[in-house]
Amino acid sequence: MKMENPTPIQWQFSERAQQLQSSAIREILKVTARPEVISFAGGLPSPETFPVERMRAAFDSVLVKQGKVALQYGPTDGYGPLREWIANSLSGDGVKIVPEQVLMVSGSQQGLDLLAKVLVDEGSKVLVETPSYLGALQAFSVYRPEFVSVPTDENGLLPDRLDDIGKGARLLYALPNFQNPTGRTMPVERRIALVEACARLGLPLIEDDPYGALCYRGEPLPKLLGMNPNGVIYMGSFSKVLTPGIRLGYVVAPVPLIRKLEQAKQAADLHTATLTQMVVYEAIKDGFLTEHIPTIRKLYADQCDAMLAALTEFFPPSVTWTKPEGGMFIWLTLPKHIDSMKLLDEAIEQLVAFVPGAPFYANAPEHNTLRLSFVTVPPAKIREGVEKLGKLIAAKL
Amino acid sequence: MKMENPTPIQWQFSERAQQLQSSAIREILKVTARPEVISFAGGLPSPETFPVERMRAAFDSVLVKQGKVALQYGPTDGYGPLREWIANSLSGDGVKIVPEQVLMVSGSQQGLDLLAKVLVDEGSKVLVETPSYLGALQAFSVYRPEFVSVPTDENGLLPDRLDDIGKGARLLYALPNFQNPTGRTMPVERRIALVEACARLGLPLIEDDPYGALCYRGEPLPKLLGMNPNGVIYMGSFSKVLTPGIRLGYVVAPVPLIRKLEQAKQAADLHTATLTQMVVYEAIKDGFLTEHIPTIRKLYADQCDAMLAALTEFFPPSVTWTKPEGGMFIWLTLPKHIDSMKLLDEAIEQLVAFVPGAPFYANAPEHNTLRLSFVTVPPAKIREGVEKLGKLIAAKL
Repeated sequence: MKMENPTPIQWQFSERAQQLQSSAIREILKVTARPEVISFAGGLPSPETFPVERMRAAFDSVLVKQGKVALQYGPTDGYGPLREWIANSLSGDGVKIVPEQVLMVSGSQQGLDLLAKVLVDEGSKVLVETPSYLGALQAFSVYRPEFVSVPTDENGLLPDRLDDIGKGARLLYALPNFQNPTGRTMPVERRIALVEACARLGLPLIEDDPYGALCYRGEPLPKLLGMNPNGVIYMGSFSKVLTPGIRLGYVVAPVPLIRKLEQAKQAADLHTATLTQMVVYEAIKDGFLTEHIPTIRKLYADQCDAMLAALTEFFPPSVTWTKPEGGMFIWLTLPKHIDSMKLLDEAIEQLVAFVPGAPFYANAPEHNTLRLSFVTVPPAKIREGVEKLGKLIAAKL
Repeated sequence: MKMENPTPIQWQFSERAQQLQSSAIREILKVTARPEVISFAGGLPSPETFPVERMRAAFDSVLVKQGKVALQYGPTDGYGPLREWIANSLSGDGVKIVPEQVLMVSGSQQGLDLLAKVLVDEGSKVLVETPSYLGALQAFSVYRPEFVSVPTDENGLLPDRLDDIGKGARLLYALPNFQNPTGRTMPVERRIALVEACARLGLPLIEDDPYGALCYRGEPLPKLLGMNPNGVIYMGSFSKVLTPGIRLGYVVAPVPLIRKLEQAKQAADLHTATLTQMVVYEAIKDGFLTEHIPTIRKLYADQCDAMLAALTEFFPPSVTWTKPEGGMFIWLTLPKHIDSMKLLDEAIEQLVAFVPGAPFYANAPEHNTLRLSFVTVPPAKIREGVEKLGKLIAAKL
């Protein structure tokens, strides 16, 4: 039946696809997947934190009690009891979130894709932090926006710049807690000023919060969502507090936007796996996360301390870094003349990996920056890897 | 912390989002979810076919043996052993498919979305059957193509029309086996002519094949993929042969296209759930499907026969319908003056549901058509529902 010598196809990709690239991080991860590499590159949660037995029991229970429902097609907006759980978890302090404001998605990354699909036209102004989360830049760039990189300081975005540059923008994307890639946290006053500036401009404000629960020092700060539930789009995830491999996240927004996102999701993948949603609800409904999350915090806090101590011990004084109060990442600034992309090649030869800073900038990159993750590797390896990196840098001074 | 009286946001949706609509089918499904309704509307597989115990054992085995891998982030292109299994299952008869040609997706619907994202610009010509699968029209329409509805007869697409209308088109989308919505099957000679016409034009040909294994009469026909592996994009799914609620499908295509689709998938949702892919591989690797699929065939063949018999018994001779050799659907053509959309309102009052034919047409709809699914409801209910529909139609003659 096979045709003989058919003319080979010349693939003509869409304009949006022609500019698509594989994420720098995922390319680095391929190189560093060898077990002998000490990887500070990925944001891979430590498998030590995965509640395997809890998940196993939850799969078993759901399949025994409701197998035929769990394995059937389900509603696009998601599993009702889980949406209700999420709405309740975000309500309080005078704020009431209802399940109709919650859309379940196949990981936060899908939330980013759907939001851009629904809010961004070619050339639309999209505001991001300087630097910003690479995966968000990648998701948004498919829809060919004009990125505007909002100036930041050590406390995050500078809201007073928004009145100038935010006019007519379609959205502002921010990560107020333990930001990826910098690890920095936005203080309360800054949050209030940001929410007020966006409300003044009528500018949709995306609050991406995958790390909010991973707080190692001080108290969790109030969410932007609670400050203006009608203007903030909140994104949450089970990847960092339960497990990432199940791909489950959620978007919380005013109902008119949720309805539109639901239509986009229906066209994109019909719905997120019914079974996964039922199992996560089964696993967490009795308060499991309140006992589980502290164990993750303890593990990562120790690894964060180990990395900060090693940086102080082994890095030259001309390098500076952030001191995160939570999350997964530390952000380093090297002397101007050191290009972290070139440094990476040398580091990989020494079996140490990190992510260079440049891909996190929507506009003008700062090539002397880099991101270290402290969650994947245990303390002894952290010390060993940081020492090696320190020597490589010291040799360039 | 809550702002007092912030200005409400005026949501400005993207142009592509403004034209997005919820699928007619899913809206009908909401109405007909009540258990007292006899629904011929959805393509919901019968839960009787779900191998709940097999899936339960597979989840348990994977979580016990490889829990920490299964719950971790995974590669964007998918779980290696499952991609290899799929490549092997499609190889033979002089055709060799390699795992690098396989991309795992979160259900076939995501494959449709990614293909359009990567191949279709605004205004690109996209060729579809008359009528075509509604979910594909919905997925493609997000990228604002110019749909061209290719003429068909009882054997499917008319390939000799392609030389005229196919020039410069970005893709042709076809469902050769037990098509959704018509249930018709493309004979071998027609398949050869179609593949040759597309190869002549250098036109990418999407072969969507979710129902291929559900063959009730005769022998399975050769896949388009095998006729020209360099020009055909094959889409498969575990929804109809295993379970739909896990959302797992795959795209098989030449490597340059798979690499581009992989980049698009990375931006869209990073990857499909690791655990799901490992569990499906665990469930099927020892040949389970070769014993399981015949049980599905038997169940659906009986229900198909029951519906065909009831149509003959209760429907007036001025109504015609297809006699599918597999799949899930029968397509009806009513006398010209009957609008099936209006008929649906009356049918729902009688607690019977179906999908009107109009939404399946990319261009000029034929309002006197409708789709019946025979897989969701057991034979006695099929007879009862068809009798009610027959009376409603007879009353209009």
